[in-house]
Amino acid sequence: MTDIILPPPDEGTLARRSEIIAGLRRLLPQESVISDIDERRPYETDALTAYRRLPLAVVLPETTAEVSAILRFLNAEGVKVVARGAGTSLAGGALPAEDAVVLGVAKMSKVLDINYENRTAQVQVGITNIAISQAVEHAEFFYAPDPSSQLACTLAGNIAMNSGGAHCLKYGVTTNNLLGVKAVLMDGTVVEFGGDYLDSPGYDFLGLLTGSEGQLAVVTEATVRILRKAEGARPVLMGFDSADAAGACVADIIGSGIIPVAIEYMDRPAIKVCENFAHAGYPLDVEALLIIEVEGSEEEIAFYLDKIASIAEAHKPSVVKVSQSDMESAAIWKGRKAAFGAMGRVSDYLCMDGTIPTGQLPQVLKRIGEIVESYGLGVANIFHAGDGNLHPLILYDMNDPEDLRKAEACGADILTLCVEAGGCLTGEHGVGIEKRDLMVHQFTETDLAYQMAVKGVFDPQWLLNPAKVFPLEGRPEPARAPVGKAA
Amino acid sequence: MTDIILPPPDEGTLARRSEIIAGLRRLLPQESVISDIDERRPYETDALTAYRRLPLAVVLPETTAEVSAILRFLNAEGVKVVARGAGTSLAGGALPAEDAVVLGVAKMSKVLDINYENRTAQVQVGITNIAISQAVEHAEFFYAPDPSSQLACTLAGNIAMNSGGAHCLKYGVTTNNLLGVKAVLMDGTVVEFGGDYLDSPGYDFLGLLTGSEGQLAVVTEATVRILRKAEGARPVLMGFDSADAAGACVADIIGSGIIPVAIEYMDRPAIKVCENFAHAGYPLDVEALLIIEVEGSEEEIAFYLDKIASIAEAHKPSVVKVSQSDMESAAIWKGRKAAFGAMGRVSDYLCMDGTIPTGQLPQVLKRIGEIVESYGLGVANIFHAGDGNLHPLILYDMNDPEDLRKAEACGADILTLCVEAGGCLTGEHGVGIEKRDLMVHQFTETDLAYQMAVKGVFDPQWLLNPAKVFPLEGRPEPARAPVGKAA
Repeated sequence: MTDIILPPPDEGTLARRSEIIAGLRRLLPQESVISDIDERRPYETDALTAYRRLPLAVVLPETTAEVSAILRFLNAEGVKVVARGAGTSLAGGALPAEDAVVLGVAKMSKVLDINYENRTAQVQVGITNIAISQAVEHAEFFYAPDPSSQLACTLAGNIAMNSGGAHCLKYGVTTNNLLGVKAVLMDGTVVEFGGDYLDSPGYDFLGLLTGSEGQLAVVTEATVRILRKAEGARPVLMGFDSADAAGACVADIIGSGIIPVAIEYMDRPAIKVCENFAHAGYPLDVEALLIIEVEGSEEEIAFYLDKIASIAEAHKPSVVKVSQSDMESAAIWKGRKAAFGAMGRVSDYLCMDGTIPTGQLPQVLKRIGEIVESYGLGVANIFHAGDGNLHPLILYDMNDPEDLRKAEACGADILTLCVEAGGCLTGEHGVGIEKRDLMVHQFTETDLAYQMAVKGVFDPQWLLNPAKVFPLEGRPEPARAPVGKAA
Repeated sequence: MTDIILPPPDEGTLARRSEIIAGLRRLLPQESVISDIDERRPYETDALTAYRRLPLAVVLPETTAEVSAILRFLNAEGVKVVARGAGTSLAGGALPAEDAVVLGVAKMSKVLDINYENRTAQVQVGITNIAISQAVEHAEFFYAPDPSSQLACTLAGNIAMNSGGAHCLKYGVTTNNLLGVKAVLMDGTVVEFGGDYLDSPGYDFLGLLTGSEGQLAVVTEATVRILRKAEGARPVLMGFDSADAAGACVADIIGSGIIPVAIEYMDRPAIKVCENFAHAGYPLDVEALLIIEVEGSEEEIAFYLDKIASIAEAHKPSVVKVSQSDMESAAIWKGRKAAFGAMGRVSDYLCMDGTIPTGQLPQVLKRIGEIVESYGLGVANIFHAGDGNLHPLILYDMNDPEDLRKAEACGADILTLCVEAGGCLTGEHGVGIEKRDLMVHQFTETDLAYQMAVKGVFDPQWLLNPAKVFPLEGRPEPARAPVGKAA
């Protein structure tokens, strides 16, 4: 996909636009419908900033009932809808279209209920990821998935993309921590999937919805698992002279059966940028750095750090540095979590998000280096090594269209490599607009046909975030009339 | 549903039967097609023995290719298929029909690959649950979900029902430990969902398939997560004078944020039967018994047992007995895991499988007692209290049809109660034939319509285990012709 300059809308389009906005205004308070061009501007892109599209309008509902009214109206009118959390998608998952209404959940950010006996928190999905943990912090509980963007990103987006984070090695990703949702289907029907209990009868629609990138329903409320904080936690920094050694070390730690809370990987370019930003004490003279965190009591921490050190020994780390204080630990994580932002100050980049079997790390890292070099581009690797979730940042110059084209081709090669290595196109960022054409590398035509048929069950007209996830070619003909109810 | 005596098949039916069997024989070796009436007999029921139906034929394929050939043929012929693991379903999930072919996976029980670096085991799904752990035992690894029937039940059935077990409080149920499957759709298409990596792009069909009770596809191979065994584990027995006190104690332990490996509950009738069977050292003079297991190093075990004891104190346990040896621990678990079998020697029973928010335990247990009493029946409660997964065994006399009717009505009341308490109809046994008519208590008409529409995407003719899960009334008209491909 390339960004194109669209012709100005004709009169018919403008009249239609006014009609839709008038309809939305009848359903919502004045301040909840944004139609002014300057006020729509902040919604024209997400964190995949290479692409921009000004939406037809933006609505900011405050209740499930309002979401239901909006979707019922837009479904009847046959108007597309792009649901939006905080717009932090790195894959263009929240990119609007000129003929689509953006439905932002930012105003729906309340904590509805905290229940420690059931270890659950019930929230509106516009809440930021970090705010869930903050709401239960006083009781020493937390919400486990922790995307790097957790200060900004919403639970809504986390559910849409099945987001992970550095600490998901031990605690799992969003789908492992989500118990139930209230959601609205495109025809306005309010549904509940899952709930405040172990498992659901019937098909697992909660699982199906998680990671479906806003294509099956708009989630408005969620019940998530909260967990008790460990007594303490401590990261160790390990520097290696080669990516091979670091990758092999990760594979050996995982192979031993130990599950640290996190195993993060940075290569030399990433280390430099992050250290400059966070002064975290990262060693600057190594090719690869692992941040390995363990948690528990003092005794457990000592026990596991010891075990990990003895496994690492075989791979000859040139630096082993255990954090000596909470402040040092905080700086180490600040550097890691700010990595994408810090890198953005230095260079434009495309952030890839492939996943591979952990055992394949050394070979795949080597091959990524070769691929990037063949395009004459730079790369920085910062990623969740413990669960094989790679994030190569392909460095390029956004103002040079040829450079963008090269970076995209390079990214496609890297993701195809992940699939060939027995892995997949995305770990936690989703497919969005970025990877929709690569889906044919992961799935057969039949696979995709079945996925799209399921999309058609929930949204027969293909109005919910339709440009994403699937290649534009080979799509089924959407039902022309609003269908609403399934057969 | 009541069991009925069917009239003998007419000539047309018999001719059709011969035709189908002849077709199957063309696809499979002689010994893999069972048509003889006496040899079909073992397949006429599962662990819900109140219901029996002699299947049209039984096939026992050995490869994915054979499964594909069978399904392609039966799809073209419009013949129903009931996939079967070990037939241990307590909900009638594997109950055949006279016009259905049973597809047993018993011959597909190979371990295909063990990979410690990725912590994965790849197996054929006819393998028993326990055999997966046995295959990795020498390396101190194990497969976490542990249904009580784990000596017999297959991974196939575990996937179909999203099975749990006593130790799932800490490790999650099947869906949390399953990474990928190879499966065959009703039209014979071989598909792969998920894989040897963290997460998949597109919709989560792996999650959708897990717990779909053999209605969407027949799984033939699976990749599961294997975990490192803890250093040690130790159960403590706690006896209480009332169900209320035991239930409140569970809620408090969970509320504290501690996650033991297991919290199992038995009431007085269950304790007696299990103690007679296993000589586990259970106290006989208490109303409720908790088996709470913690694991880790010696220090961790001591630390958690201490914490749990101090939480329990407020609920005045009359007995607190920590296991003193591995032999004692084994006896304690033998008693619990043999509970259903031991109870079966004493009385016929219907095993319920409702799930509730843990905080509701005391109220719900009390109400179950009242409901059972109102029917003049007996009950024994043995269940996974830590995650709120109840298993009331309703005691009745199988030879008295009126007693069965009463037990079923009583069971329906109990499960409806679970839904009203904010829980659901099933934790791990599935809906099967037993609870299909109760689904209307859990789901709206719209919910069910969408679930059935998804069934229609994968199996347009409704041939895969069709009598199960959904109420017979209100079903969509199945597509008449074999459709195969989605739109």
